[in-house]
Amino acid sequence: MAVKLSRYLLATLREAPADADNVSARLMQRAGMIRKLASGIYEWLPLGLRALRKVERIVREEMDAIGGQEVWLPVVQPKQLWQETGRWGVYGKELLRLKDRKDAEFCFAPTAEEVITDLARREIRSWRQLPAMFYQFGLKFRDEIRPRFGVMRAREFLMKDAYSFHADEKDAEAYYRAAYEAYKKVFARCGLRFKAVEAQSGAIGGSHSHEFMVLAETGEETIVSCSRCEYGANIERSEIADGRWHLPAEAPPVEEFATPGACSVEDVSRLLGEPAARFLKIQLYMIEGKTPVLAVLRGDHELNEAKLSAALSAPLLARASQAQYEQVLGCPVGFAGPQGHGGLKVVADFAARSVGAGITGANKADRHARNVLAGRDFDVAGWFDLRMTKPEDPCPRCGAATAFHKGIEVGHTFKLGTKYSKAMKAEYLDKGQKPQALVMGCYGIGVSRVVAAAIEQGHDQDGIVWPLAIAPFQAAVVVLDEGSDAGVRPAADALATALEACGLDVLEDEREGKPGVKFKDIDLIGVPLRFVVSRRTLAAGQVEFKRRGQAKAEAWPLGELAERAAALTR
Amino acid sequence: MAVKLSRYLLATLREAPADADNVSARLMQRAGMIRKLASGIYEWLPLGLRALRKVERIVREEMDAIGGQEVWLPVVQPKQLWQETGRWGVYGKELLRLKDRKDAEFCFAPTAEEVITDLARREIRSWRQLPAMFYQFGLKFRDEIRPRFGVMRAREFLMKDAYSFHADEKDAEAYYRAAYEAYKKVFARCGLRFKAVEAQSGAIGGSHSHEFMVLAETGEETIVSCSRCEYGANIERSEIADGRWHLPAEAPPVEEFATPGACSVEDVSRLLGEPAARFLKIQLYMIEGKTPVLAVLRGDHELNEAKLSAALSAPLLARASQAQYEQVLGCPVGFAGPQGHGGLKVVADFAARSVGAGITGANKADRHARNVLAGRDFDVAGWFDLRMTKPEDPCPRCGAATAFHKGIEVGHTFKLGTKYSKAMKAEYLDKGQKPQALVMGCYGIGVSRVVAAAIEQGHDQDGIVWPLAIAPFQAAVVVLDEGSDAGVRPAADALATALEACGLDVLEDEREGKPGVKFKDIDLIGVPLRFVVSRRTLAAGQVEFKRRGQAKAEAWPLGELAERAAALTR
Repeated sequence: MAVKLSRYLLATLREAPADADNVSARLMQRAGMIRKLASGIYEWLPLGLRALRKVERIVREEMDAIGGQEVWLPVVQPKQLWQETGRWGVYGKELLRLKDRKDAEFCFAPTAEEVITDLARREIRSWRQLPAMFYQFGLKFRDEIRPRFGVMRAREFLMKDAYSFHADEKDAEAYYRAAYEAYKKVFARCGLRFKAVEAQSGAIGGSHSHEFMVLAETGEETIVSCSRCEYGANIERSEIADGRWHLPAEAPPVEEFATPGACSVEDVSRLLGEPAARFLKIQLYMIEGKTPVLAVLRGDHELNEAKLSAALSAPLLARASQAQYEQVLGCPVGFAGPQGHGGLKVVADFAARSVGAGITGANKADRHARNVLAGRDFDVAGWFDLRMTKPEDPCPRCGAATAFHKGIEVGHTFKLGTKYSKAMKAEYLDKGQKPQALVMGCYGIGVSRVVAAAIEQGHDQDGIVWPLAIAPFQAAVVVLDEGSDAGVRPAADALATALEACGLDVLEDEREGKPGVKFKDIDLIGVPLRFVVSRRTLAAGQVEFKRRGQAKAEAWPLGELAERAAALTR
Repeated sequence: MAVKLSRYLLATLREAPADADNVSARLMQRAGMIRKLASGIYEWLPLGLRALRKVERIVREEMDAIGGQEVWLPVVQPKQLWQETGRWGVYGKELLRLKDRKDAEFCFAPTAEEVITDLARREIRSWRQLPAMFYQFGLKFRDEIRPRFGVMRAREFLMKDAYSFHADEKDAEAYYRAAYEAYKKVFARCGLRFKAVEAQSGAIGGSHSHEFMVLAETGEETIVSCSRCEYGANIERSEIADGRWHLPAEAPPVEEFATPGACSVEDVSRLLGEPAARFLKIQLYMIEGKTPVLAVLRGDHELNEAKLSAALSAPLLARASQAQYEQVLGCPVGFAGPQGHGGLKVVADFAARSVGAGITGANKADRHARNVLAGRDFDVAGWFDLRMTKPEDPCPRCGAATAFHKGIEVGHTFKLGTKYSKAMKAEYLDKGQKPQALVMGCYGIGVSRVVAAAIEQGHDQDGIVWPLAIAPFQAAVVVLDEGSDAGVRPAADALATALEACGLDVLEDEREGKPGVKFKDIDLIGVPLRFVVSRRTLAAGQVEFKRRGQAKAEAWPLGELAERAAALTR
């Protein structure tokens, strides 16, 4: 039955609260979808919950389609399980820890690898039970240090987390592909523009992962994608091919010169009138706080710390402090070069070769040097891909041009391998009755975040522009001048019924009030299909129809309503 | 599509864990519906979740039918709100309290009156918005001192909580009736035998409430219900009419006698050969730990403390300690009578009049007295209904015979009045633009508890006996001797498809294994309708059909499958 607006909590606001810090946080509060209860903790009002439930339903159907079995795991989880994997110690303050009345320690689950692996080690005994995938729609809590962007980076949120178990790596890989395709279906069915990109694994760990990004200019993440092939990656992870530049065999001798007060590539470049691409830029890092290593890049390039960390197989890497810099390199920050530091490990980015003999610091205060050449003036322990991708970099797979997009991460798939199953001794008996570690994958979707991301992607100056599939209401029937014509309400009710028969969720705005106020509300909450029934339209034998965002309304003859309405959902 | 058992986590167990302490805890674990993660904290496996979701769906439909608007409220709730109603201080250790990384205090919600009243005071401004009802399926946590009975008294559980807001008491009362009827529909649709009874309000407070009890011999609650009229009540609350007995105008003088070591009514009754109904039994209570009050009952009756507390308007009432008894009454416990305590307040149960001049303690060690008469030998400050109902007591409404039942509380409706709205200043503007306190009702269903209660009501020696509406699977197709006849599986698949077309949830047991093992599993998990397809049945042009709990199977001709299957759900 169509929802009547006079009996519905439509809690629209003229102004968003002052602390709403992005488009979706503002529009979700203005449209009355959510309200803030505490920092990073939100109430979902009826309108917001409708959208959330629609996303949930689509996700559930696609998880079931790849053989997922829905479970429901506790959010209050005992410390002991988290100690088995070592994550009780590693997780830090984001893990909300709590004690019950008997002082037993628990956490409020931010994710469920431990509990599901524990379940698998109890319930999965034989290869016959594999593969198996379990998923849930779980309330999660992450005690973010700075919750922001409304429900997008909230502390309490709804996540679909799924975990698969396999007999071997090959089966895990095949299932990973199926899950990847299911994720693409989920976001396509939600009506979102998105990209699946290669991603870092982050804190959850494992060997291989993809992020699913909803494209939106307001997104926090930058995505590099190829204009020709399927390649796409988070910029943190996007590869750059070796340009195969050759260093010159010889160069003039190193020559120092004064650069008083000019310590950055930018400063010295301006001083000399030489482009930044002629410079050798250095950055000093410390491995585990004690072993220094110097990275060399072309002056106009930016270091990617994740790549440096991977190249050095050094997860615990940090930029040197001013004191460390001055102690290791023997000069003030901004005046060091790679030459003349015997025994210091130097690694360089592929593109630093293209500089040839370059300009760099002279290792003395207020002085720089030119004609500094790798191999002659300093040794390079290894050449690597160490830098951030730039828009002009070609695709690392096919060489075509790339494009940058901004995106919002809404899903993440991981191949976990045996990280958790080995730590927790989750094994099955293979066909030869030998115990083997279960091979795992895990697959998350931020269900509440999808709703916000859809709004970041779809909005205009009047409010939200929903995709039809996840709009809280898909059609609105606005009733006007009801007082002056007793035929208006029955006609509106009949239209609402006809639209519902087409499978649409219908809102009937039969409130008293001015047309302008009603239209503003309907636009703000983003109803995709708007109908108006009034004395005037009925006198003309019509109703008025307008799609959200369309400038002009169309007149629909009353006799063609059913037929035209049916065409809307085809 | 029918679920294939070879690809499903059927985690049945021969034996329940040793700590499973009631029928449903044992059967839910044996059937693989749940597993225990920690004390009072359970995982819901796929089979269990199917039942839970079915109950959830029925509840949602009935809440929507009475105009409920679904919301989703945070489980982590700030201390400040709970302080506004005083419940932060009152709730005790059952409230799981926690601190975030910034040391701000929160609780894990055991119920949501504060949050919803806060929502209402922000969003409801005018009488035009009333009545309004909001509900949610909320995860709840109550840190029970002794979690037991599996999910029935778990710490983490799923509750449907609903809250209604009204302009006045009359509208609240009308809505309360509608909610009461909706609750009856919910449990009837779940296929449960239940009774709605008048109940105490308990810790949530308010003026009027009903409990919904699933009838089961294993239930913790005792229900008194009339054999003729609609009267039903929790025994704690069940009323007893005044029998209108008259005290005799005169009686022989009080006479003391020795009763060495006999201090209970039972002992003295046996000693004298006099029935307990000839005794005046006394119990001493202390109001707020300091003011004593003596209750007098007939010797064969049991005091109902809640009634005494209500009669005295004394919520803080406790039984006197031995020391208090001896100090106030001047003799050892078991030897006091109501007579001879000038200044001590005495109240009596209506039925104590029927004793006339009775036998009671003599206020001296090892001595009792007979012919003690109210009005002559002691003053009664008031006659009240103070005792527990007995099976022979007639209905307090119509006088017909009553019956006792055991039950499990699965739902509770409350008229809250303005308790929360006044504490939190939740007001609306009436037609005259005057602020008025919102009148509230609240309505809870223990969704996870309904699943357990259904099992307490429906089980036999072989396992669970589900009502069709909430059975995880409604029909099972058991495939036998598949290896010997290539036609068996296609016939089984076709049957499964036909059953699904009738709207049944179908499980196809196509596992390898012995028939006996398969039948045991199907009975244990309680599938209501069981079909067997085998070489033998097909050779006879039949499939075998048996209802759960029915002794003998029926043979269904293949040609009549569709027609007969359709009749199952009619």
